Amino acid sequence: MPEGQSSLDLLEIWESLMPSLSIDCVVFGFHDGQLKVLALKLKNTEQYALPGGFVRKDESVNEAAHRVLRDRTGLTDIFLEQFYVFGERERGDQRVHQEVFRANGVEIPDDHWLFQRFVSLGYYALVDFSKVRSTPDWLSESCDWHDHRDLPPMILDHNAIVTKALETLRLMLDHKLVGFNLLPEKFTMGELQQLYETILDKELVRSNFQRKMLSLGIFERLEKKMTGAANKAPYLYRVELNTLRNKD
Amino acid sequence: MPEGQSSLDLLEIWESLMPSLSIDCVVFGFHDGQLKVLALKLKNTEQYALPGGFVRKDESVNEAAHRVLRDRTGLTDIFLEQFYVFGERERGDQRVHQEVFRANGVEIPDDHWLFQRFVSLGYYALVDFSKVRSTPDWLSESCDWHDHRDLPPMILDHNAIVTKALETLRLMLDHKLVGFNLLPEKFTMGELQQLYETILDKELVRSNFQRKMLSLGIFERLEKKMTGAANKAPYLYRVELNTLRNKD
Repeated sequence: MPEGQSSLDLLEIWESLMPSLSIDCVVFGFHDGQLKVLALKLKNTEQYALPGGFVRKDESVNEAAHRVLRDRTGLTDIFLEQFYVFGERERGDQRVHQEVFRANGVEIPDDHWLFQRFVSLGYYALVDFSKVRSTPDWLSESCDWHDHRDLPPMILDHNAIVTKALETLRLMLDHKLVGFNLLPEKFTMGELQQLYETILDKELVRSNFQRKMLSLGIFERLEKKMTGAANKAPYLYRVELNTLRNKD
Repeated sequence: MPEGQSSLDLLEIWESLMPSLSIDCVVFGFHDGQLKVLALKLKNTEQYALPGGFVRKDESVNEAAHRVLRDRTGLTDIFLEQFYVFGERERGDQRVHQEVFRANGVEIPDDHWLFQRFVSLGYYALVDFSKVRSTPDWLSESCDWHDHRDLPPMILDHNAIVTKALETLRLMLDHKLVGFNLLPEKFTMGELQQLYETILDKELVRSNFQRKMLSLGIFERLEKKMTGAANKAPYLYRVELNTLRNKD
């Protein structure tokens, strides 16, 4: 139970939520050539889940998504967008919620809407892996990165939610140039290409990729990245248009 | 009121719905160089609205969208996809629902969730204008096409929903080649170009457009379209891959 709160306090909190609705966030990070996803290990259980939560009656769904992500992982000020509504009639065993709350000392009546069917609004987030120090909440033992191809089985349809988020990321990669949100501020063309190759899961031709990217006219060329011999050091780039680093 | 039903029957129906959720459909059609949108005139009122409805507890949200569109417009078997969740705290005056039901002889208690805030799942549909004989339901006086730039003011945030749907259509036009759903089965390259120009609201260079389209390798060239002199008649095409005509 959260410090200083009782089951009754929690029931009151649930009264302030919109019934039938939840939010689940797929947080992507890129590191060491791997596309990673953030998953919570739920405290005192063997269950894993995406960071998720509910919508308060006094906030918009997009505000709710930002708050939920902040409360459950400590992440703020990041690219976060709706991508799909998960509204199948059966999304898996809803009783898992009862198990998780009970294991953490919270008793909720069996007939509460929390244990009925609800529809989940899927959001995906793109974060610069190097900047993340995620903090698990009172219901979570840990909040860790997993390779997207090697995720633990998660509750309900959460693994399917990740699959759909990845489809969306692939579709949006070129169109809205969202990929930059996964890189540090300064990067080489080689690092950018590795990011694209990992997300698209295919090799790209170096010269074509660089020509296409540079023709977009959105990169500012900076100093060389000094790692070895100066004559072979690649240039660093950054995105010139602030508008592309979508923070909302 | 629907024939043979009482207010009590209707209340029972509302008990079978998921609270806090609605569905609104933006139906696009293309005709005479205009991109059109279907709007309902609500019976015995001066209000216009998008075809919309609610989600039953025993159906998925996507099933609900197809049913709602069929019930309210008579349209079946068409391209219909989620595009955004409209979940602002204030989406306009919810009392308009009370006005509409009262004007049609249905009395619903003021404290019903129908008059509270709900979140609307936005779907967009693309239909071949020539095939549509839409049929208004018991709450609607008519169900008519309007140029998308000249829509009547609609209830709640429905005009904003159309704007967002149009943004999505533009984004998806190339990526998922959804545009074909707006054309008859056989079309000329000129007709296809006119469709793209209307949706994107800009002129395209004829030779570039045709080269790009034909390079996709998805068109089957058919007979010439005979309208005037045979030597000037353009070829008709159709999409070869059935998979592109997404019916779900």
